[in-house]
Amino acid sequence: MSKVVIGVDLGGTNIKAAVVSEDKKIIVQGDCPTGAAAGPGPVMDLMAGFVKDLIASAGLTMADVLAAGFGAPGPMNWRSGVVFSPPNLPGWKDVPLADEMKARLGVPCYVDNDANVACYGEYWMGAGQGAESIVVFTLGTGLGGGIVVFGELLRGIDGTAAELGHLKVQKDGRLCGCGSKGCLETYASVTGMLRTAKEGWDGADTSLKALCDNDPGKLTGKMIYEAAMSGDAFARDVFTETAVWIGLGAASMVNALNPERIILCGGMSKSGDLLYETVRKTVKENAFEVPAARCQILPAGLGNDSGVLGSAGCALARHHAASC
Amino acid sequence: MSKVVIGVDLGGTNIKAAVVSEDKKIIVQGDCPTGAAAGPGPVMDLMAGFVKDLIASAGLTMADVLAAGFGAPGPMNWRSGVVFSPPNLPGWKDVPLADEMKARLGVPCYVDNDANVACYGEYWMGAGQGAESIVVFTLGTGLGGGIVVFGELLRGIDGTAAELGHLKVQKDGRLCGCGSKGCLETYASVTGMLRTAKEGWDGADTSLKALCDNDPGKLTGKMIYEAAMSGDAFARDVFTETAVWIGLGAASMVNALNPERIILCGGMSKSGDLLYETVRKTVKENAFEVPAARCQILPAGLGNDSGVLGSAGCALARHHAASC
Repeated sequence: MSKVVIGVDLGGTNIKAAVVSEDKKIIVQGDCPTGAAAGPGPVMDLMAGFVKDLIASAGLTMADVLAAGFGAPGPMNWRSGVVFSPPNLPGWKDVPLADEMKARLGVPCYVDNDANVACYGEYWMGAGQGAESIVVFTLGTGLGGGIVVFGELLRGIDGTAAELGHLKVQKDGRLCGCGSKGCLETYASVTGMLRTAKEGWDGADTSLKALCDNDPGKLTGKMIYEAAMSGDAFARDVFTETAVWIGLGAASMVNALNPERIILCGGMSKSGDLLYETVRKTVKENAFEVPAARCQILPAGLGNDSGVLGSAGCALARHHAASC
Repeated sequence: MSKVVIGVDLGGTNIKAAVVSEDKKIIVQGDCPTGAAAGPGPVMDLMAGFVKDLIASAGLTMADVLAAGFGAPGPMNWRSGVVFSPPNLPGWKDVPLADEMKARLGVPCYVDNDANVACYGEYWMGAGQGAESIVVFTLGTGLGGGIVVFGELLRGIDGTAAELGHLKVQKDGRLCGCGSKGCLETYASVTGMLRTAKEGWDGADTSLKALCDNDPGKLTGKMIYEAAMSGDAFARDVFTETAVWIGLGAASMVNALNPERIILCGGMSKSGDLLYETVRKTVKENAFEVPAARCQILPAGLGNDSGVLGSAGCALARHHAASC
């Protein structure tokens, strides 16, 4: 039978893994807690054991495996597979993840950052399949990005590209965690939406106040979305304002890259028409006519599995490129 | 002897042409007035005659020519070589420039937009030579852009990519000629600089007032630059403010694309330290550390010839790709 490829999404809380055939069929997948507190050695042993069990559960052996790919939090050197010091993996410092996993699994191992593998997953098997080029915005606490052009992830010369949450969208705007001001993610993310709500909080007539004991520090993105859907005008304005900012970031990417599709991933991407209508309208009003008419703006096709499947896809692509 | 390639930069005022060897040696070059008022037929006849004369003046014949490339104002279809209706070429409407020139010259002809060929020129023979990836900002009346990644121009699916003057940098900001608001070029271009000067004009104590009879409509970018260099504080602030905006646009590109170099072209790119120190400082303060430290920010290496030489370079690259 044909060979398979392994994808692993290494998160601070959970590890997801999948075994995928070269023709993009998911053979088996699963997840387990990361147990990150134990540090890199035990986490890597756990990943290796979990992956071997998955392979066995599918009636396969490691001899059937072409390669394994790991999506991990950055910063990292994707070429060497060394993970520097991700904030949510305590004790990880310059860990040679690719080499360590190759030693444990006996197959070629490739490492890429989590935002990039999620983007590649959408390109390979999701809403970006068959597209000439895609841009992915991952809407969560922050705003992550990914870019595929010429059939490849655009990683940049140091592998730091596609930090689309750090496009500058407002001079002297909101202070960003990166140290700069006016970054897109300070407006166009769940955290950005919460900041917008807090800024308008004092005079607002909103059901949100009762929901969070009038303490805006207890607000969540979900509360705002649900209140907006229930007809709360303040919540609706806050959500729409956030969607306009996402649309302005998308319009910049439409003008800069003329991509075939822009794909929204992450929790907030599941917000349906309330999100997509505003984003599409904002792009139409702010980008050039031809590329705006061309660019489809779509929700992720793989839900929460963009990362784990994209890790497999990236590994396969890199393995084929290395074998050329 | 080895073959040559022809590059032509078709502008509204002048036509520039160059004959270049495959190993990037300029054999001969020249220019002549476009005579745009005569319309497309006579302009194309003129270009063909001018190019043939250049070839003959170098002791060559058209049999020595591998291909010819034409940089023309957009919008256009670069694949088919049809130029739609450029504002500064009166009477041009859906002109099949590539086919028409092939009929006149008898060699394969390729058409690309002027901003893209200038970018490719810098990559092929100028300040971008040998770089893994470059971003070009052409600072003139507006702000044009170009992107080379993976060794190729990033044109986008419709050929409209790299409109970097239309990154959104200020919500509800200055009205742009494109119909949107807050586009980078409304701040980071000669026109943007003039707008900044006019906004601060009334209360300003500046030598510029005498220079232009206190009519800010008569201001030019050169006046502001020269006054700034002579120590006029208002002019210096206006110039620096413009350079900060260019730096913010550059910081966005550093974060989004992690390019090896950003190259500034166009008249304003010759402003020396007054420009480059502010742009570099702004990038350092606003982009991530690794890609900001990596990215060199440089003036054009080919001066005003990026376009004509890039037209030759593009034609050569496309001719080789088509022959594969």
